[in-house]
Amino acid sequence: MSVATSSSQTSPTAAQSDPNTLGWMQGLPPPQDRTVAFADSSFRNFPELRWAWSNIRQLVPTVNVWRGAGPASVLPRADHDIGASASVTMDGRPMTFARMLEETYSDGIAVLHRGRLIYERYFGALKPHKPHIAMSVTKSFTGTLAGILISEGRIDPQAPVTDYLPEMKSSAFGDARVREVMDMTTGLEYTEVYTDRNSHVWALRRANGMAPLEPGYDGPTTNFDFLCVQKKQGEHGRAFAYKTVNTDVLAWICRRASGLTLAELLSERIWQPIGAEEDAHYHVDRVGTESGGGGLSTTLRDLARFGETMRNHGRFNGRQIVPGSVVEDIARGGDPEKFKPAGYTTLPGASYRNQWWVTHNAHGAYMARGIHGQGIYVDPKAEMVIARYASHPAAGNVANDPVTLPAYMALAKDLMAGG
Amino acid sequence: MSVATSSSQTSPTAAQSDPNTLGWMQGLPPPQDRTVAFADSSFRNFPELRWAWSNIRQLVPTVNVWRGAGPASVLPRADHDIGASASVTMDGRPMTFARMLEETYSDGIAVLHRGRLIYERYFGALKPHKPHIAMSVTKSFTGTLAGILISEGRIDPQAPVTDYLPEMKSSAFGDARVREVMDMTTGLEYTEVYTDRNSHVWALRRANGMAPLEPGYDGPTTNFDFLCVQKKQGEHGRAFAYKTVNTDVLAWICRRASGLTLAELLSERIWQPIGAEEDAHYHVDRVGTESGGGGLSTTLRDLARFGETMRNHGRFNGRQIVPGSVVEDIARGGDPEKFKPAGYTTLPGASYRNQWWVTHNAHGAYMARGIHGQGIYVDPKAEMVIARYASHPAAGNVANDPVTLPAYMALAKDLMAGG
Repeated sequence: MSVATSSSQTSPTAAQSDPNTLGWMQGLPPPQDRTVAFADSSFRNFPELRWAWSNIRQLVPTVNVWRGAGPASVLPRADHDIGASASVTMDGRPMTFARMLEETYSDGIAVLHRGRLIYERYFGALKPHKPHIAMSVTKSFTGTLAGILISEGRIDPQAPVTDYLPEMKSSAFGDARVREVMDMTTGLEYTEVYTDRNSHVWALRRANGMAPLEPGYDGPTTNFDFLCVQKKQGEHGRAFAYKTVNTDVLAWICRRASGLTLAELLSERIWQPIGAEEDAHYHVDRVGTESGGGGLSTTLRDLARFGETMRNHGRFNGRQIVPGSVVEDIARGGDPEKFKPAGYTTLPGASYRNQWWVTHNAHGAYMARGIHGQGIYVDPKAEMVIARYASHPAAGNVANDPVTLPAYMALAKDLMAGG
Repeated sequence: MSVATSSSQTSPTAAQSDPNTLGWMQGLPPPQDRTVAFADSSFRNFPELRWAWSNIRQLVPTVNVWRGAGPASVLPRADHDIGASASVTMDGRPMTFARMLEETYSDGIAVLHRGRLIYERYFGALKPHKPHIAMSVTKSFTGTLAGILISEGRIDPQAPVTDYLPEMKSSAFGDARVREVMDMTTGLEYTEVYTDRNSHVWALRRANGMAPLEPGYDGPTTNFDFLCVQKKQGEHGRAFAYKTVNTDVLAWICRRASGLTLAELLSERIWQPIGAEEDAHYHVDRVGTESGGGGLSTTLRDLARFGETMRNHGRFNGRQIVPGSVVEDIARGGDPEKFKPAGYTTLPGASYRNQWWVTHNAHGAYMARGIHGQGIYVDPKAEMVIARYASHPAAGNVANDPVTLPAYMALAKDLMAGG
């Protein structure tokens, strides 16, 4: 299977693009050619983004997700250098776990086995106490929160979206059901092509505050206004199509159903109960709306805590945080037939359920995935959780997956074999 | 003594302007007439600012001041309702401590007596775990950090500013000494009139990111660039004149002398050692520079911890955090003759030293002060510390002082009498 990783092959390596070595935002003040700025969008360039994804709060307004006043939960340690764990990439190259980390521009990796932190490394601009932007990993938090609210009877997944958001009546979501939004099977005109500035995802970014507004801009300036003008294309419920606006609509449903902001909801239902080590944060639009589709930043260890909560059927830190039925629904996955037409060559047989990617592989692994290689990988059979932050030059996992996914599976097998 | 409080008399009362009652930034999404925005500067209007000062992070980019990984230090409690403590305002009105809080738009107050938290109240949009913008109280943190670096021999207060910042040679600071910057006795063209948008303080805000840029703006876009073009007027060393740029220059000297950002320096030297309960944060300019003159936000309790550290000669949480000599230098104060010409009618006989306001009253009280009524009041003789956050409609303490200062002194006497 030949999956081109051309963009990473022509980019500087992880070592060459190390933000500390290059001196991005260093110096008092940093020299102009080492400044990472929001106004000119340079924060999205490579290698600038290697600094930016660990420092997004310095570039845009944010809202805190409070960890609560108590102590952080204990993550028991059992150091085990799995750097030499061997795998073969999808295009046939021999690989080790440590080399995989470097080749895919990891900023940090935490591996838990049977609840113990066996391997933890930081690279680039990331440090244990610093949050890194999770981007679309955010979606899996939103989906899990929605699952919790469903289990409490506050959201009915079969109900029309307009039961919660009557303002969306004349939008694409006017005849969609919550379940279709959760599983991204809505039919939308909206496109999500990160490399095309004319793609709708860029309009979403302008509206939600993650892209600067050009002079004379007269489009929507809030997340909500953008969602309300989305147009339908095709049918709802037929096929999976990865479109971030679904998650933003789901986040609105969660707010309406709970009466809380997304930051309050995440703090109350997940961040405080898991005993997070540090506050998380969301970037916000011009009226304080969190981006539920991509705006969360967390520390690596707190990402690992959430992954371990999922692996452990929703129990962590001595309490049931996510109902077991919500986790099982996610782990069981969605309909691979609806997923297939989307053409993810690196994810054969997979499905998408409640904002999680489900592999349906021999270990029943499922994932949260961000476009620069951020992720949570839960392998129930191997009792393994991998949390990873990264700043890959390519926006999209097609460059990551051929290297990372075989490495994760190989490590799972090593751990099961006691290796 | 008649000190007009006209602006507060014509403004809605604290109860009438309560941001929760008025519904600022409430609703999903908030209605347009209840939105507090950065782009149109509405966040600086009253009563919008009553929401904004407790939520500044949702409006501008910020950088974290890490509290460290350990537990928060214990603030022993000994509840004592001092709300009835009676005083007489400078214009002769009978007052109680509780009424003072309301009349001066307090968002939170914490009173420590002999190291115990005897009184703690929250109002408006503030909560115990939420940071509130300290504005010019920030200066006293910068001055204390500079004092620490002086005591370590990293800064020489008699040295020219250009020893640390050669780039400022052709600016107003080109022939100033560090001591003159610390005590704000530089002679500068810069003016600080908050109510006049043509005053230099507004140009500073545009440069440091705390005011939006108008279309076609071609002035400085960073803190550092703004400082480098300041012009001299009059002589250095002659008289105190309150001008925030001094503190921003001092912050640059601290960065150069320590090799750290201001956020790192504050975290390392004060925030971690005092066992702060929550991270603090600074707002930053377009190249990540913290505003050392006004950009810090902290929780009320952490502000109280810092005040208690000062009262206790720099010791807190079981360790010497600020050298005793640094605290004593501040408490001893500066030269009241240099302070007098500035004409602060509410502060007769006072002085300014190392970015602190020193009353030279019978109790030797000294203060950190922010323009909307934020403050730390240290009364060594009464063994009392008051930390306060507020969102007074008037930008300037001339409306606060006539009510607050007599109330603080009356409370000090009550506490000394065992009342």
